[in-house]
Amino acid sequence: MRTGIATVCLSGTLKEKMQACAIAGFDGIEIFEQDLVTSPLSPEDVRAMAADLGLGLDLYQPFRDFDGVTAELLKANLRRAEAKFKLMSRLGMDTILVCSNVATATIDDDELRASQLAQLAALAGEHGVKVAYEALAWGKHVNDYEHAHRLVEMVDHPNLGTCLDSFHILSRDWDTAPIEDFNADKIFFVQVADAPKLSMDVLSWSRHYRVFPGEGQFELAKFMGHVVRAGYTGPVSLEVFNDVFRQSDVERTAVDAMRSLIWLEEQSAKWLESTSAEAAAGSVPASRRRYPMELATLPKVSEPAGFNFAEVKADDTARLEKLLGQLGFGFEGRHRTKDVQLWTMGQARVIINEQAASHSEPAIAALGFDVDSPVIASARAQQLKAPVVQRRVQADEEVFQGICAPDSTEIFLCQGSPDGTAAWTHEFGEGLEHPGSGNRAVIDHVNLAQPWQHFDEAVLFYTSALALEPQPFAEVPSPSGLVRSQVMQTTDGAVRLVLNLAPAQQASAQQAQSARKSYQEHIAFAVDDLVATARSARDRGLEFLQIPANYYEDLDARFDLEPGFLATLKELNLLYDRDADGEFLHFYTATVGSVFFEMVERRGNYGGYGAPNAPVRHAVQYDHLHRN
Amino acid sequence: MRTGIATVCLSGTLKEKMQACAIAGFDGIEIFEQDLVTSPLSPEDVRAMAADLGLGLDLYQPFRDFDGVTAELLKANLRRAEAKFKLMSRLGMDTILVCSNVATATIDDDELRASQLAQLAALAGEHGVKVAYEALAWGKHVNDYEHAHRLVEMVDHPNLGTCLDSFHILSRDWDTAPIEDFNADKIFFVQVADAPKLSMDVLSWSRHYRVFPGEGQFELAKFMGHVVRAGYTGPVSLEVFNDVFRQSDVERTAVDAMRSLIWLEEQSAKWLESTSAEAAAGSVPASRRRYPMELATLPKVSEPAGFNFAEVKADDTARLEKLLGQLGFGFEGRHRTKDVQLWTMGQARVIINEQAASHSEPAIAALGFDVDSPVIASARAQQLKAPVVQRRVQADEEVFQGICAPDSTEIFLCQGSPDGTAAWTHEFGEGLEHPGSGNRAVIDHVNLAQPWQHFDEAVLFYTSALALEPQPFAEVPSPSGLVRSQVMQTTDGAVRLVLNLAPAQQASAQQAQSARKSYQEHIAFAVDDLVATARSARDRGLEFLQIPANYYEDLDARFDLEPGFLATLKELNLLYDRDADGEFLHFYTATVGSVFFEMVERRGNYGGYGAPNAPVRHAVQYDHLHRN
Repeated sequence: MRTGIATVCLSGTLKEKMQACAIAGFDGIEIFEQDLVTSPLSPEDVRAMAADLGLGLDLYQPFRDFDGVTAELLKANLRRAEAKFKLMSRLGMDTILVCSNVATATIDDDELRASQLAQLAALAGEHGVKVAYEALAWGKHVNDYEHAHRLVEMVDHPNLGTCLDSFHILSRDWDTAPIEDFNADKIFFVQVADAPKLSMDVLSWSRHYRVFPGEGQFELAKFMGHVVRAGYTGPVSLEVFNDVFRQSDVERTAVDAMRSLIWLEEQSAKWLESTSAEAAAGSVPASRRRYPMELATLPKVSEPAGFNFAEVKADDTARLEKLLGQLGFGFEGRHRTKDVQLWTMGQARVIINEQAASHSEPAIAALGFDVDSPVIASARAQQLKAPVVQRRVQADEEVFQGICAPDSTEIFLCQGSPDGTAAWTHEFGEGLEHPGSGNRAVIDHVNLAQPWQHFDEAVLFYTSALALEPQPFAEVPSPSGLVRSQVMQTTDGAVRLVLNLAPAQQASAQQAQSARKSYQEHIAFAVDDLVATARSARDRGLEFLQIPANYYEDLDARFDLEPGFLATLKELNLLYDRDADGEFLHFYTATVGSVFFEMVERRGNYGGYGAPNAPVRHAVQYDHLHRN
Repeated sequence: MRTGIATVCLSGTLKEKMQACAIAGFDGIEIFEQDLVTSPLSPEDVRAMAADLGLGLDLYQPFRDFDGVTAELLKANLRRAEAKFKLMSRLGMDTILVCSNVATATIDDDELRASQLAQLAALAGEHGVKVAYEALAWGKHVNDYEHAHRLVEMVDHPNLGTCLDSFHILSRDWDTAPIEDFNADKIFFVQVADAPKLSMDVLSWSRHYRVFPGEGQFELAKFMGHVVRAGYTGPVSLEVFNDVFRQSDVERTAVDAMRSLIWLEEQSAKWLESTSAEAAAGSVPASRRRYPMELATLPKVSEPAGFNFAEVKADDTARLEKLLGQLGFGFEGRHRTKDVQLWTMGQARVIINEQAASHSEPAIAALGFDVDSPVIASARAQQLKAPVVQRRVQADEEVFQGICAPDSTEIFLCQGSPDGTAAWTHEFGEGLEHPGSGNRAVIDHVNLAQPWQHFDEAVLFYTSALALEPQPFAEVPSPSGLVRSQVMQTTDGAVRLVLNLAPAQQASAQQAQSARKSYQEHIAFAVDDLVATARSARDRGLEFLQIPANYYEDLDARFDLEPGFLATLKELNLLYDRDADGEFLHFYTATVGSVFFEMVERRGNYGGYGAPNAPVRHAVQYDHLHRN
């Protein structure tokens, strides 16, 4: 599959964009006109630079408001087009995108449109240019890709074809199956964009909220499958207008973009395979069961089976040790060669890493996931352009395959075991006996704060590299604003990650340090008997997050709880939730640095995270932070 | 008018919110339930604190999903309601907001709903509570305020009335005139919110994009006029869910909120007056031509007649002096007692203030506006809670009335003169002769960068305090993201302010300094002959912002310009635009600190700002910034 990207997806100057695309490994780019117009580079400079970078210049775009106009305007439009054709020749480009008219069309007549497009195609032919005509979702008269294709068929000129853009097609809920019947020679270009399903006017949706494939909710693999079955072999190019991507680091966004195409390629191949039975059964003509586009595949991985460990880093680890001890974790000893400690409760393993920079506050540094094959999982992640984490290891120690998540958390791919143990724990010295060692416990979920520039990137990262599934998106009120919350999890819930986008901080340089502190992250452990766990922790002196009395009054108004149970909840600072599937009890510890811990008990099949209680936690933590 | 605000509008804890509301001068507040549930303050604490602060506790809200339910659910709902009624008694509150059911209603039958609301009213009566029933715009069966009112009339119980919320009414485009016929005794509460006209699902619109009155596009004065004519005398309370306000400084947002009600009160009185003729003519019953609610008025001001001056502050002023001299400005001398210089060209006056903190880069510090009466304008601004600017003045010097805009720019209200001169210029010593002194020139517009937290606040500030009108909103692409641009201007265009919201910076502490630099602001001057002005400036060695050659090719493709004219534009780095009303020529200087200048020529009735050229300016400036 030939990969491409429109320069409008990225921040920076044309030169910066082209360099970033080359580094990320794209085959070609679309030159967005404004990027050229505002650039000090001459067309010849751009041509030479693209050649040096090994980038094809695959599409010049957009040319707007051409068709369905008066004779007088047609003349001006042809003049305008010819100027662009000449420019393209200087750029060494041969394909231009012409969008269906949104502004100046006054005549709604297919015969007239076809005759005007025929004149454009003839003129293009004289300049060696191919015109890819696209139906915009909000085109005045032409807003349906099949309509655009019919016009192309009517004109039937070798220099006129169509451009298929997944956004313009899927935002209108058009059926994509008819694409398979298109003549591949008439599909000049394919653009892909994903988007969250929003109910708003399609123009604003398109201009601000598009995302890269895998970051939204469109059925792009199916769209691509139809395109591939049609016999198309040209570029598959990203055209993603997104307010955040336009503000973010250009090289990093280009890598995110490339990852989305690598993933889409795999998903498209899977979709084609999954529908091959039906194809063989005759609903797809035999000629389309084989297709000329080659689709690369990736090393296959299953969902991770669970968390292997979580690692917290700190300069001064005393407060962390105290908290874990009070929760009932046991100290298993120090690593034989590294400055790290291991603490466990049941199958929940927490590494305290003492190798932090001096004066750095405790923070979540790494997570380990149990996978079938660390090597295969790592190979897949690397093919998806995940940055590799380098860790020094000594001979005879387990080698961890590590990758770096978009928020800089290190993700280690560990060999899972049927009994939930981890071989590497033998590298730690003999620990102390501890009261909670008999407890059954696992890491239930981990809640990570995401920088706003990398929220969508993180969704694709965990989807593509780690086979987690995004759940419906939520927003949680906090005293400093709404917190956007995206759960990524495995089907069985054994691995649950909560990605939180905290409200923007009003961070002046002076406030930066305290602002960082308000991005709190946490690790939650599940136990069988939360009340007993809480009582023991209290007896060991644990500082619980103090839940306001008003909360318990409201809880009682909502759930009509048994008075003894309500009193227990209140006594122990436990929070409670209930839904049709079960019940959820949990409590939080005080925060140390930017980290705190949560203990949870899931009763029945409760699958949530106590979302109605999240505002209480945020408010109490905010209050603590601002009092300190 | 009794003023109020819901705690959900603001950031912070309940205590912080209450304190900020008292400081801003609100009469009362609505307690948003979640703010109480998450607070460590007991109901009794809240009651005592409100009393100490002189704040009424006017509404407890929201109580959700009560009506149209099964008998079993009704029982649970009544139990839940009673718990809240008891809580309200501890708070000393007597009115609760009950929203029409959005989730659990299963029976769409007005008789049933009325009977259930009657049971709620009876229970409320036992606890001395009044129930204000509100139709949410997305209510499952009740989503129209007239429907809610009919139900209230059906029940006809002294403890049941309705709550009118401008958002739920105006977002659905309901006619507001029928409010006048409501029985005032049945209107228990009025909530106001403004909003930009967005085409998106009404729930998301409501939860994220409401703004304070005067910051959106709803006809709120008319809505309030109908409410006042109905005879309502209760609180007029803001309920504004806004993502930005929830993140912003609580005290500042509370002042912004209060300003919006003061302004709304005046606008409502104006609307009532403007419609009094029609009222007298009989379309409004005589009984409603006088109404019990007292509406305070403000000192009246007209639109400013023009810019009096612009002031730029710098530690090292040499580069500014050079730029102004090259543009053709003349140095008129230094102030007799202050470290400031005056430079003029025609009626365009620029003050260079040398009293900046050391090492601070040049920046726009103040603007003067010509008004009919500085004292009246200042009194109005102060009643609208604009912060006053203190400037030292010597005896026999003109006293400037100054206020501080939301972005910290100082705004001075100056006595205009019929001939466009300014009396205070006599305080400056004899200046040099200068070549451009004969030029006709005025300040055409000023472009100010706005912090993202204060964008909406700025719109209301300039609307209410300075009688500028917001124009349709625009977005301009730049290499670092989209720039939101809001023009505020007088009807005749004599004063034009462009408020720009630059893209968020990825500012780590280290980047803060360079990030600030990318917020460039400018002052534009209009002259009669831009080509001559540019030639003279070039001869004096002015450093123009260099416009890429590609721009002129595109310009020619778009406008088919006369070759000689195009060559002149290109030779002098001039930009060009044309619309149905006229033509626009302009050029930019290089940037000094965070300031640059623009010279413009308006031909015909061109009323814009060369918007198609703004991306070129942004790209070239970005390129300079990143190369330096």
